[in-house]
Amino acid sequence: MSSMTSTVDIQQAVTTDAFDLGPARALSCRECGHRIPLAAEFACAECFGPLEVSYDFGDITRESIEAGPRSIWRYRGLLPVPSNVREHPNTEPGMTRLVKADRLAAALGLKSLWVKDDTGNPTHSFKDRVVAVALAAARELGFRVLACPSTGNLANAVAAAAARAGWESVVLIPSNLERAKILTTAVYDGALIAVDGNYDDVNRLATELAAEHEDWAFVNVNVRPYYAEGSKTLGYEVAEQLGWRLPEQIVIPVASGSQLTKVDKAFREFGELGLVEATPYKVFGAQATGCSPVSTAFKGGHDVVRPVKPDTIARSLAIGAPADGPYVLDAVRRTGGAVEDVTDAEVVEGIRLLARTEGIFAETAGGVTVATARKLIAAGKIDPDAETVLLITGDGLKTLDAVQDQIGPKATIPPSAAAVREVLGH
Amino acid sequence: MSSMTSTVDIQQAVTTDAFDLGPARALSCRECGHRIPLAAEFACAECFGPLEVSYDFGDITRESIEAGPRSIWRYRGLLPVPSNVREHPNTEPGMTRLVKADRLAAALGLKSLWVKDDTGNPTHSFKDRVVAVALAAARELGFRVLACPSTGNLANAVAAAAARAGWESVVLIPSNLERAKILTTAVYDGALIAVDGNYDDVNRLATELAAEHEDWAFVNVNVRPYYAEGSKTLGYEVAEQLGWRLPEQIVIPVASGSQLTKVDKAFREFGELGLVEATPYKVFGAQATGCSPVSTAFKGGHDVVRPVKPDTIARSLAIGAPADGPYVLDAVRRTGGAVEDVTDAEVVEGIRLLARTEGIFAETAGGVTVATARKLIAAGKIDPDAETVLLITGDGLKTLDAVQDQIGPKATIPPSAAAVREVLGH
Repeated sequence: MSSMTSTVDIQQAVTTDAFDLGPARALSCRECGHRIPLAAEFACAECFGPLEVSYDFGDITRESIEAGPRSIWRYRGLLPVPSNVREHPNTEPGMTRLVKADRLAAALGLKSLWVKDDTGNPTHSFKDRVVAVALAAARELGFRVLACPSTGNLANAVAAAAARAGWESVVLIPSNLERAKILTTAVYDGALIAVDGNYDDVNRLATELAAEHEDWAFVNVNVRPYYAEGSKTLGYEVAEQLGWRLPEQIVIPVASGSQLTKVDKAFREFGELGLVEATPYKVFGAQATGCSPVSTAFKGGHDVVRPVKPDTIARSLAIGAPADGPYVLDAVRRTGGAVEDVTDAEVVEGIRLLARTEGIFAETAGGVTVATARKLIAAGKIDPDAETVLLITGDGLKTLDAVQDQIGPKATIPPSAAAVREVLGH
Repeated sequence: MSSMTSTVDIQQAVTTDAFDLGPARALSCRECGHRIPLAAEFACAECFGPLEVSYDFGDITRESIEAGPRSIWRYRGLLPVPSNVREHPNTEPGMTRLVKADRLAAALGLKSLWVKDDTGNPTHSFKDRVVAVALAAARELGFRVLACPSTGNLANAVAAAAARAGWESVVLIPSNLERAKILTTAVYDGALIAVDGNYDDVNRLATELAAEHEDWAFVNVNVRPYYAEGSKTLGYEVAEQLGWRLPEQIVIPVASGSQLTKVDKAFREFGELGLVEATPYKVFGAQATGCSPVSTAFKGGHDVVRPVKPDTIARSLAIGAPADGPYVLDAVRRTGGAVEDVTDAEVVEGIRLLARTEGIFAETAGGVTVATARKLIAAGKIDPDAETVLLITGDGLKTLDAVQDQIGPKATIPPSAAAVREVLGH
């Protein structure tokens, strides 16, 4: 695997002491393998392929991890962050619950099921993980402003992390965003700027600004290689929380596809480092039918992911041209998994099924994951007898619109016990 | 302290093997001391005083706690729950972050400040703690339905915990409740019933139903003595997370007042059990001026808390006749603390101050706590050189209405870098 290749080559190519980013040693192109020193770069100068962090991991043991803090920083020896990362204020996300989901398992016909509930993070989505890593790397790389284009969870996470660190933030959003999502970002008092245009317009503006402002770290643009590594912690935590072993099957929502590829990377790293037995596992990708370019490519047997125009209630997954789509296909095919997609109606059913069986209220992306798992079980792709993990990466409180027409009180009654008895039939 | 009195008397009075509620041995009246066996009772038959759980704690050590799960069940040896509590599904709340809040400390002029961020719980408030304990005790006491009257956080917590356990739930709410709060309870698919009336009407109906239905556990009515003990875990966690010691000052929001008295109880228990050194600490209570009966009594030097009609945006604290008000006064006066109240405008400032300094978005009750701390510092009641903890017990995502008129984007611009430069001045 590229991230574990011999360190000799790497050390010849770079000045390793330019930045203290822990075990990170270089950036390498995922397409052509070209290596450059650690820097705020995200595209290969040779082939324009995406750059990824390469490491020289030292001696990492279960004991050294277990002795660490109850946050993603227990894995700092596996992340591109300074060794003193805990000395600067950050949001310290991670170590969210891994819930044994027996009632959901029964409803789905599975023998053994776990739900990784990432709604417990500081701003209630997995984005706190990637942003915390981006902030730590950005500080070391010399940035002083944390920025992003976003339509939701990422905006919350960037504004909150910058506030905690005492950094300025610049968050760009489409001006027609729902009021609730504006408020949950604006409260952190950074520079929240509404842009008249769609998300593509906002994204293009971010890329332009990143080139202009050398001290602005756009977490998902110019420091994306570091940012993306934060998703590995989801995989590390699942393995550690299972008692230092890998699950047999895992279902992961696919937006850009980065998260799925990083969880796969985490499992491989743990195996190669001897932290877990390198047992086989299958990775499954979940998309909403209204934005399912990776699922379409998978089912069509294609290597190329054809962009689509998103139309789904699962807005946090609505990336029509997913940058890591091809790598998702690689990981899923290599492990024997699959990618599937579900309708918006099935997404709402998925949210409600998880809520009523396990008391966990997921955002639409979580509904996609649950509903896709159900579809894959029915199709015989997910083995009901193999241990399965579902990643729930965001909170239903942020996507109330998706369920508001489907649920409500059982009845509205006068204040009398007789009226309650009548409603309940007892 | 009543909870630690000799077990000899207690064991004579009760059949201790009737229920396995761990270290709990009896219910005793806080007013007259009358003891009864463990049961689903909440008021003393002799004097109508409130009943409280009495214990016979076994050998509890730091090591035995540290070896436990990362949830409130690590303290099960100190709670009225069965020793096998973890064998039944429950929400497993607790062990939320204790955040070193240096930027907020600087803003407030404090030397050392911590924020206990209970928004990380499963339904994002401390209510998950008390409901989890109530559910565990209710199961052992023979109940089969989990119920409550509520206007918000409690409704979420009860519906979610019942869903996870596979229990029926009955949640009674005023029919004019905000749509968002209805949705975040309805999604768990219990019997959510809207009642045409105010919260007092709903509460009376709950008491009537509790008397009628012997298998319904109204968490804050007929199993209240067990439920209330769940708040002790906030105190236990603060002490453990500080490295097994007590803070010098702690600021706690006051609704019924139960939480404040239980945190105080937790600190005393830890001291008496030798888990921490019994160092002095001061407990401060925080209320909104629009519902400040306890603050009024404190400042007036009264022992009696005179009921008020609430009128404040801090709805989760809006209990006009707080059941534990007198015990709050006792705890605050005994420890040398104070009770203070703040206006709704100060509440919003408190929410915003916490958000922009620490990246934590609290509900209105959190704004009350922060603003009250600021007021007590200015008045010289809180010592700026003594280590202080603020309890943040609920999430801003649930009370967006409170801030919506105060915050928003810095600007709305066309999608151009020049426009961004103009807004930011760089």
